[in-house]
Amino acid sequence: MRVYGDIRSGNCYKIKLLCSLLDIEHEWIHVDILAGDTSKTGFLQKNPNGKVPLLELDDGRCLSESNAILNFLAAGSELLPSDGFRLAKVQQWQFFEQYSHEPYIAVARFIAKYLGFPEERKVEYEAKQPGGHRALAVMEKQLSTSPYLAGDSLSTADISLYGYTHVAHEGGFELDEYPSILGWINRIQKTPNYVGMS
Amino acid sequence: MRVYGDIRSGNCYKIKLLCSLLDIEHEWIHVDILAGDTSKTGFLQKNPNGKVPLLELDDGRCLSESNAILNFLAAGSELLPSDGFRLAKVQQWQFFEQYSHEPYIAVARFIAKYLGFPEERKVEYEAKQPGGHRALAVMEKQLSTSPYLAGDSLSTADISLYGYTHVAHEGGFELDEYPSILGWINRIQKTPNYVGMS
Repeated sequence: MRVYGDIRSGNCYKIKLLCSLLDIEHEWIHVDILAGDTSKTGFLQKNPNGKVPLLELDDGRCLSESNAILNFLAAGSELLPSDGFRLAKVQQWQFFEQYSHEPYIAVARFIAKYLGFPEERKVEYEAKQPGGHRALAVMEKQLSTSPYLAGDSLSTADISLYGYTHVAHEGGFELDEYPSILGWINRIQKTPNYVGMS
Repeated sequence: MRVYGDIRSGNCYKIKLLCSLLDIEHEWIHVDILAGDTSKTGFLQKNPNGKVPLLELDDGRCLSESNAILNFLAAGSELLPSDGFRLAKVQQWQFFEQYSHEPYIAVARFIAKYLGFPEERKVEYEAKQPGGHRALAVMEKQLSTSPYLAGDSLSTADISLYGYTHVAHEGGFELDEYPSILGWINRIQKTPNYVGMS
């Protein structure tokens, strides 16, 4: 099993973290997003949408989209609930992540940390701030009532949201005003077999 | 079971279509997005993220995010594969929809159809066009090799993508150059119990 990814991307780090927590053997193939590797023909044959992470099974079948990969790899483990409603809640948080969280927090971080905060993207960076804080406030509300996003135990929903939340400060989002998020980050970092982003 | 939704929204229509295909009884509660209903306190108590559609079960538990609702309601039916990899492919397409398709096609349509194409959003509208066509090209590629997005039979992935694709022209995306998408739209519209958007 191969994982194509760029570890600077929170979406790719999610897979690394899950594989460590569940002790899943895999080969990591570095794909350099900034160097344009995801737009090359060979990669586009594996993922026509030109994005990492990408999972390639030993039989050659490929799966993209970080959260779909997480749920596929976690099937049957304690990280994916068997109860139908809790499983739906996991997916609710993951769709929230891709629509209401990542496009603000990950993009602001990308502009600041990887593009070196160029003048022509400062307006976009500032425009990302309110949406990012809205997403953090929604998480804070949930985490003030349950230790993990989808209930009492760690699930792939937490891994999905942890990816960019724990580095949100790199996009200008200080977490001091979100004590429940800080507690949740701390809990995740104490999980056995936890591994950091770099 | 109650569904809170605004039928002008493709995300809400997805739920209406699924309920019709699977003959799921529900009460539809109209929420007017343009009138600000999703920002009102009563609604925010049900969904702190302030978005429709929202599913409310008879016991009061709520579930948001259209694609999570689809998969919850379709569990155990022929619209959700039992095979692990196919199930992951369904989710792959659904995350693709929320990240790489909806933010372009649905937003362009919203600007043109519901906001009346205001001058100050024309630049944004134009900026949405290349991303929308990129997403359609990815769908076209898949649908030229399989009749439905996740294989040989209709799944919730198709319902997720159908929501905004079949009205993409309202956002300026003519589908003439995507023959496989047109064939797929035609197949979906011939499904027993199919219901249109309005």
